[in-house]
This record gives sequence, C-alpha cells and structure tokens, in this order.
Amino acid sequence: MPAPQEQDLIYGTHAVAAALTNPRRHIRHIWATCNAASRLRETVAGRDLDVEIVQPAALEKILGDKVVHQGIALEAVPLRPPHIEDLPVTGTVMLLDRVSDPRNIGAIIRVCAAFGVSALISTTRHGPPAGGLVAKTASGGLEHVHYIKVPNLARALTYLSKAGFLIIGLDGGSDLTLDQAIRQGPLGLVLGAENKGLRHLTRERCDCMARIALPGAIASLNVSTAASLALYAATIR
Amino acid sequence: MPAPQEQDLIYGTHAVAAALTNPRRHIRHIWATCNAASRLRETVAGRDLDVEIVQPAALEKILGDKVVHQGIALEAVPLRPPHIEDLPVTGTVMLLDRVSDPRNIGAIIRVCAAFGVSALISTTRHGPPAGGLVAKTASGGLEHVHYIKVPNLARALTYLSKAGFLIIGLDGGSDLTLDQAIRQGPLGLVLGAENKGLRHLTRERCDCMARIALPGAIASLNVSTAASLALYAATIR
Repeated sequence: MPAPQEQDLIYGTHAVAAALTNPRRHIRHIWATCNAASRLRETVAGRDLDVEIVQPAALEKILGDKVVHQGIALEAVPLRPPHIEDLPVTGTVMLLDRVSDPRNIGAIIRVCAAFGVSALISTTRHGPPAGGLVAKTASGGLEHVHYIKVPNLARALTYLSKAGFLIIGLDGGSDLTLDQAIRQGPLGLVLGAENKGLRHLTRERCDCMARIALPGAIASLNVSTAASLALYAATIR
Repeated sequence: MPAPQEQDLIYGTHAVAAALTNPRRHIRHIWATCNAASRLRETVAGRDLDVEIVQPAALEKILGDKVVHQGIALEAVPLRPPHIEDLPVTGTVMLLDRVSDPRNIGAIIRVCAAFGVSALISTTRHGPPAGGLVAKTASGGLEHVHYIKVPNLARALTYLSKAGFLIIGLDGGSDLTLDQAIRQGPLGLVLGAENKGLRHLTRERCDCMARIALPGAIASLNVSTAASLALYAATIR
C-alpha cells in the first residue's frame, strides 16, 4: 500500500458509487462484501476494475471497527483540486474558518454539491483529509465540489475579494441579515466553527458581515445547517 | 431509580443548561464532574438542587461509554407535550414520517427551536424517546419545541389540515418548489426519511407536495438539512 497521505479510503454506498462514476477518479482497489458487490454491479461494470470480495471483518480491519462501511470500500488517488487562482469568478464559493469536524465538513460538502457550489475552501491546519468520514458524510458530494486547503485563509479572502467575489462573513451578531447582504454576482460565504465564530483577521478580510435571521428561542445553529441556509439564501436571491 | 420510560436522561452542556432554565422541567438529580459543575454553577444556583460531584467514569456507568457527556448529566421527568388538538392554529408545525435516527430528530428539534416552530410531530412507532442523544443533538431545543408522538400520522394530518394548517409534503420529485407552495397562514411541513420519502397515505393527506429547488449535481439532502431549508423558506415568505 502507498503512504497514507497519497490515498483516499472511501466507503459507504453513496460515496463509493459517486467515486466510481467520476471519470477524474483514479481508483486503485475495491473491496466489497458479496451483497454490496451485487448492489453496485452495474456501477462497477462501467470501470475496468476487479472487485475483491471480502467478509465484513476484513473491511473492519482496513477501515477500523467504528465505521459504517455498508459493505464496500475503495482506495483511490486523492483528487487534485485547482488553486484558488484558477477558480472561475462566478457562482458561489464557501470558506471555513477553524471548522475541523469531519462530519460537519462532509455535511457541508454534500450541501455544496446540492447547491452547485464550485469549491469549499478550508485551511491546511483545520481541514481534515478528503477520505474516510468526510467522504462518507458528503454522500458522493466530494466528487462534485473542489475541496481546497489553503495555508492562509486571510490571504485567500483578499485574493477572492479582489478577483470579484463579494465576501460575506456569517455572524449571528451582525446588523445585516443574509438576504439584505447578498447581491447578484460571484459570492464567497465564510463560516466559522460553532461557538468560536470567525477570527478577527478573517472578519477584517470580509466585505461585509451578515446573520441568518432566526425568529426562535435558540440563536445558534450547527455549522452545516448554517451553511445550508446561507446557500439557500444565495440561490433564491 | 424509576422505570426508564418515566425519565429523561439529559447530558451535555447546552442540553443540561437549557433544562435547568426551563421552569416546566422537573429535575430529579444532577451528576457533574468538578469542572462541569463549576461551569454551570450560576445556572444550577437558580434551581433548588444539589449537584452530585462524580468522576467521569461514574457518568459513563450511568450513560454508557459511547456518549459525549461533557461532564454533566441530569435525570428529569419527561415533559408532557400537548395533544395536537390543543396546539394553537398559527405559525409552523413540522411532521416526520418514518424518521427514526435520534441524531436527525435532535438536529431537527434544534432547528425548529431556532425558527420558532411550536411542535415537531412524529409517530409513536418511529420517534425515539426525548432524552439521551435526541436531547444532546437538540442542544437545548427540546425545552422550546413540543415533541409530540401520535399513533397515526395520517389522522394527525387530516386533523391539522381541517383545523386550518396548509399541509405541504416535501418530495424532491414535485413540480412545485417550496417557495411556490408556501402561503401566508398556519403551515404544516411534512418530511420523510432519506431515501424512503413519504408513505402513500401520508402524501394523500397533504394539501400539496413541493420540492426544495436544488441547482447542483446532487439532488438529495440529509433530512435535517431539508427541514432547515423548509423552515427558512417558510420564514422568509
């Protein structure tokens, strides 16, 4: 097996099926239980690949025993995302400040794919690797959204703002609501981790700050819920 | 200890703090580590309650060792939700058809609380109990939203529709989008489990069906994400 940093381990029915139908994915190996292999037979047939039929225990040996693998896993070469300078200046990109939980990142990638967001940008320091729990929770979304890690978020924001993206930072304490802040044109939405929010320098590099209007008793949202609502607001503008 | 069905075990900082500040909550006992007790000192002081200081291992014995308890747990009498006939015919209620995952239910209760939804209605058969993982994931929301279980969802829908709620069932294959379907007035939003959707009889009892407009490559959403977007659409109508 190659060094861990050079492979994505992708498991779960939706994530594996999406990887198999992504022509940009170079897949090295597939393991599947008999049942899972028969469920994905047609999808696998589209690729020139042999499936290694295994017992569930063998998958647990590869993936660990806390993983919901649904009987199938594959090893693939990580996708090479573009540099942010090569992103088209159109549509919406999403940026994360200190969000590190792989379930949240995966859920955000899934909803980015549902809303046609081209890229999710995180920091090298906080962004978990693209395989495993991120890919599983993204439920196939990872094959459609560029998951880009940058060493310095503030610098990325400065670049994107100059390139023509309107950069809106989300903060529950803002005067403006999201639908007041959003305008036509390329959009960058910046979200911080729950409780922590955006760092001072991140805020400084946003063109404006805005909040999601919440009429209820609880003013806080899970970060992936906030991401979903921000993308919906951007879509219906 | 009383029989399990007569208690909610609530753990985690946000869920416990919200239970402590809910005057409708009858709390029987609190366990906390030294650190957690000092974090919640002021909240506890508002109630006439003694905190039993324990080691984390004692909490794991009560709650199980797979639980993220953040050093605090309490035992409370379950809240008695109203009957659906006693709900005010105003605002928005949400209904779930065969959604049973406690994390999803908790996440939906949290977002219902954020959007001021009065009640989340599920079936007795599929709705998990209100304590534990539901309360933890709801992050305090359970103290603000009536979590009501009914034996028969179709009958509840018929009642609510006659009472004056416009009942909209969510289905990705519908012609109408949610913002086309939503009107002023009392609203009932019905969501099914991911992949399964709404049962035939559930659909029949909806006033109309609608989809969340998703411009991207993936047309499916996690049920709690779908719930969030539907509530946002209802709020900005």
